[in-house]
Amino acid sequence: LIHIALDAMGGDHAPAVVVEGGVLAVQQLGVRVSLVGPEDVIRRELARFPSANLDLVSVVHAPDVVGMAESPAVAFRQKKASSIHVGLKLVKDKLADGFVSAGNTGAVMMASTLILGRMEGVERPAIASLIPTKTDRPVLVLDMGSSVDCKAEHLAQFALMGHTFAKTVLKQESPRVGLLNIGEEPEKGNEVVKEAFELITQLPIHFVGNVEGKDILDGVADVVVCDGFVGNALLKFGEGVSSTIFGFFKHQAKSGSLRSKLGLLLLKPALMEFKKKYDYEEYGGAPLLGVNGISIIAHGRSSAIAIKNAIRLAKNEATARISIPVSTEMPSL
Amino acid sequence: LIHIALDAMGGDHAPAVVVEGGVLAVQQLGVRVSLVGPEDVIRRELARFPSANLDLVSVVHAPDVVGMAESPAVAFRQKKASSIHVGLKLVKDKLADGFVSAGNTGAVMMASTLILGRMEGVERPAIASLIPTKTDRPVLVLDMGSSVDCKAEHLAQFALMGHTFAKTVLKQESPRVGLLNIGEEPEKGNEVVKEAFELITQLPIHFVGNVEGKDILDGVADVVVCDGFVGNALLKFGEGVSSTIFGFFKHQAKSGSLRSKLGLLLLKPALMEFKKKYDYEEYGGAPLLGVNGISIIAHGRSSAIAIKNAIRLAKNEATARISIPVSTEMPSL
Repeated sequence: LIHIALDAMGGDHAPAVVVEGGVLAVQQLGVRVSLVGPEDVIRRELARFPSANLDLVSVVHAPDVVGMAESPAVAFRQKKASSIHVGLKLVKDKLADGFVSAGNTGAVMMASTLILGRMEGVERPAIASLIPTKTDRPVLVLDMGSSVDCKAEHLAQFALMGHTFAKTVLKQESPRVGLLNIGEEPEKGNEVVKEAFELITQLPIHFVGNVEGKDILDGVADVVVCDGFVGNALLKFGEGVSSTIFGFFKHQAKSGSLRSKLGLLLLKPALMEFKKKYDYEEYGGAPLLGVNGISIIAHGRSSAIAIKNAIRLAKNEATARISIPVSTEMPSL
Repeated sequence: LIHIALDAMGGDHAPAVVVEGGVLAVQQLGVRVSLVGPEDVIRRELARFPSANLDLVSVVHAPDVVGMAESPAVAFRQKKASSIHVGLKLVKDKLADGFVSAGNTGAVMMASTLILGRMEGVERPAIASLIPTKTDRPVLVLDMGSSVDCKAEHLAQFALMGHTFAKTVLKQESPRVGLLNIGEEPEKGNEVVKEAFELITQLPIHFVGNVEGKDILDGVADVVVCDGFVGNALLKFGEGVSSTIFGFFKHQAKSGSLRSKLGLLLLKPALMEFKKKYDYEEYGGAPLLGVNGISIIAHGRSSAIAIKNAIRLAKNEATARISIPVSTEMPSL
């Protein structure tokens, strides 16, 4: 049975919603979940599920809590008994197969890297986000903010890590790996990206060349590689565009003409279907790739379903890691 | 009378749509327009408007045409008689007040920089895009792809150039200038951006600090500064998100349920209003800032109305440059 350590104190709606997500995971995914955090707080939350079979839920006491805005370095030094620290130690000590947290992203990244250690050959871990596309396959975009000053070698390593994740965890036969650029021609881009293009060409992966931002959601590649600054800025701008458009609909539903209100009412089932397809909840979290162990970073505003899906992702990753030889995970450059 | 040189051969729908845009500008904006390109081709297009008063339209012969995918450097060396080259020479020689082109962006950038020259103190010109926001003021984002390997000094110069454009051309009293970053705290970001933060803090402008991608469309700043690689990638991803959402509606209108089709029909006026507000046509083009003269880069797929609006932007810029002392345009660092 796969066993996931869950940071019960991480996220905007912790601990209530996170504990609920953990219970859902146990009920629906056939995993064992350890809720990590202050024991009394977690027990109180668990008491809300008296009729649930909680045989597969355990509580691991961790009295410290890392705030969402706290400095990752300070938290790491001063809060060795935090839910993040204790949860990752469980993975490090092979007492759990993976860690999931919707808490302070920087703190989870730093603690994951320092406690689990980097995989051999990896200089920089990367946060890999799964984003739904127009096709029936999601695209894995990395890095999303873990490494914000990338050299070409780092981008090439991201290409390998993304390739391996798509192949082993997402079960994609020959994942198409693209390099985010501002034009399709190989000579486009900044110095780092041009150099990365040359490096990635030499890797034993299916490299489809440069990919432009406007084509990512068309599904032209299964993996898209970029610097963490670019990836983070891009994703957040995309969120802004999406929220602007749907904000307009919300406004129309509330203050629009009768005609618009009626139109929206009729369109509702289709809109719900669209939102479901593109919902961040669908994948629940972003794996931190390049560390020795499984660490999934969930969205700060995660719902219980998002937490459950992040646990499912951790489970899939754990299952894949068991079934593949470790040596294929990170070919050397 | 403001006089604009228009690249009649630039853009996906040139020359027909571009010439039409030039005619619209003359009729509606009270400007003089010189159509630059092969004389016989342009005369043929102009013959489609027999009843229009074309006293303010002239034709400037330029036999060479730069293709949309041609190398900017090769085009600059080998096609001195192109519509881009000849049009910019008119501005350089003060025979026209500004140049507008929907042609090969790289070629227009390079020719603008080499023919017009950089403003004193400016190391890198920047393409500044005007993007509609939720408020009634657009946001000016620069750079959008002209400079893809920026140092902190370049970003600081963009801040000044954007400030000056917003103040003088957009008539914003004290434009709020923000730095694109992946978090709001000053210590966030990559090395270049952290250093730029310090430099911009020292400038005599209204610096509002870091701005995240998700907040740009909320109108939290009037000017947002970023490296050209980031700006271009971000904008294109935003286009991809928007086209994914509206593509869904198009699909529903065609192949959705009867209920969805009816809903969309009712929603149509509201949707048209939304599209109008956020349409790229509204501003027509992006000024290239930091060169000695006015050069507006219009979208490759520009419609006649977009061309007309790009000419309006050139006119506004020309009017502003006439009324302000040149020395205030580029304070030194």
